[in-house]
Amino acid sequence: MALSEFQLIHRYFESSRFAAATGAGVIVGVGDDAAVLRMPPESDLAVSIDTLVRGVHFPADMAPADIAWRSLAVNLSDMAAMGAQPLWFTLALTMDRADESWLEPFSRTLAEIAARFGVALVGGDTTRGPLTISIEIHGAVPRSGALLRSGAHPGDGLYVTGWPGLAALGLRRLGSGEVVSDDPAVAAFLRPEPRVAFGIGLRGLASAAIDVSDGLLADAGHIAERSAVALEIDVARLPLAAALQGLETREDAWSLCLSGGDDYELCFTAPAQSAGAIARLAQRHALPCTRIGTVSAGEGVHCHGFEPPRAGFDHFGGLA
Amino acid sequence: MALSEFQLIHRYFESSRFAAATGAGVIVGVGDDAAVLRMPPESDLAVSIDTLVRGVHFPADMAPADIAWRSLAVNLSDMAAMGAQPLWFTLALTMDRADESWLEPFSRTLAEIAARFGVALVGGDTTRGPLTISIEIHGAVPRSGALLRSGAHPGDGLYVTGWPGLAALGLRRLGSGEVVSDDPAVAAFLRPEPRVAFGIGLRGLASAAIDVSDGLLADAGHIAERSAVALEIDVARLPLAAALQGLETREDAWSLCLSGGDDYELCFTAPAQSAGAIARLAQRHALPCTRIGTVSAGEGVHCHGFEPPRAGFDHFGGLA
Repeated sequence: MALSEFQLIHRYFESSRFAAATGAGVIVGVGDDAAVLRMPPESDLAVSIDTLVRGVHFPADMAPADIAWRSLAVNLSDMAAMGAQPLWFTLALTMDRADESWLEPFSRTLAEIAARFGVALVGGDTTRGPLTISIEIHGAVPRSGALLRSGAHPGDGLYVTGWPGLAALGLRRLGSGEVVSDDPAVAAFLRPEPRVAFGIGLRGLASAAIDVSDGLLADAGHIAERSAVALEIDVARLPLAAALQGLETREDAWSLCLSGGDDYELCFTAPAQSAGAIARLAQRHALPCTRIGTVSAGEGVHCHGFEPPRAGFDHFGGLA
Repeated sequence: MALSEFQLIHRYFESSRFAAATGAGVIVGVGDDAAVLRMPPESDLAVSIDTLVRGVHFPADMAPADIAWRSLAVNLSDMAAMGAQPLWFTLALTMDRADESWLEPFSRTLAEIAARFGVALVGGDTTRGPLTISIEIHGAVPRSGALLRSGAHPGDGLYVTGWPGLAALGLRRLGSGEVVSDDPAVAAFLRPEPRVAFGIGLRGLASAAIDVSDGLLADAGHIAERSAVALEIDVARLPLAAALQGLETREDAWSLCLSGGDDYELCFTAPAQSAGAIARLAQRHALPCTRIGTVSAGEGVHCHGFEPPRAGFDHFGGLA
């Protein structure tokens, strides 16, 4: 049976499904010309938008639940990289037809990750076309307290959380069909864990931060450029997940770690006096956090001990 | 030559082109993990997102400049319907390839309408895929002062601004090829004028408001539903633009006026004591504003004097 746009929104996105996450400050949510939202006092608004297109940002056969998780996770990760507390999001959903067998698991998992991170769905738009999901996320940062890409200084340490490269290995395994159950690499790709609490913990400790979506080298490059510094990566210090350590060559593991995308870990710089607090923060969150190098005067990202074969992902790079 | 994603953003969206509209409160704009924005004091945030897909929301051969205008205008119109002062927007642009002959006029006109309405481009995302433009707009409303759909009361008057149906006539003429230069109907479709200043002027005067994107009947229906009232439209009072008056039958003109979309006029209700102030507001903005009916107890939208043939536009209505 045909489902109208209004029925679709009501059944899957306006329902009690999202009630667990009708967060603070929502004066008017879904259903008017705009949402009306009240910011916490003494805070600035952090806003980021990310679009996922089927076949470009995720495999064409990816399960709707995994697409939902990824769609919100990549945006939560941007909040993490700013040290922002995520509050609200909007969803622009374009799909070929109102397919309820797709909408049911998609909206269920979207509600699940929204509840887990305490973000409310406050608006959106559904349109007909090739499957595309745009989520815009809104968060709060203390005034003048956002973690920017531009604050790194020579002498700072360079850090990364978690196990970069693990998601890229998962994607490779999915592509080749060599998937075993509970593979942590596949889980890292399908269900990336945005480092929101850790990012908030970095307020006042980190000098610059970014999340790793396009690959550690490529994203570190943005810190180097915006901060007008050089980043020196000591390849021997790179944290290699067990699955990467088990690869045939160490070069393959380093390449994945440096150039593989989709990790949504945090890459950040911090002055020497933050080192102890960062170690305690990592311990409190049970999240590995590794110092992988140093900020120096100059420009670009330099790897010591290994020359990686390629840079990060660029959507238009291969197109004329 | 291939244009990278970063070159594309830098050349067309981060450039001085948008400098005329780096509005108030932009702490960090394009180029970090998120924009950082500061709200005016004592105000709430109004947020709305709209997606335009080629071939669905605009003709496949529409000029890039007209697409740019429409993309931002429809979002500004949502702010108008809330009585919000638009401040900032983000752009998620999906396109098949980095076509500079398209990007140049698109970004030029986007900057033009942004400057005209004083809204700053603060972030975005460019991805590869079928042409889709998602804009999210952010504005400020006085606390508890937003115009909602839910405030209409029996006895209020029902109003509409401008010339509803004119844009639909323009679209019809574009489709049939019978276009003459400076046709106001074609202009109404290609360059809709969001009623931002008028919407702000309606603060404290209107009891409920919506913008007319899907057709007067369909959008008035949302006010009726959210306010739990009936709306009685006196068809003889409908404002008919000269081009609609010139149509072969009055029924055709009324149908366009009641069911044609894409006007982006404001439809609103207001108590009797607001009537004088509304007339003065209309005069000050040189914008026709017509009382077309009355709010009554009950439900639905009822037309008196003519039965319109069809309801508004629904993206999924025709799909199984």
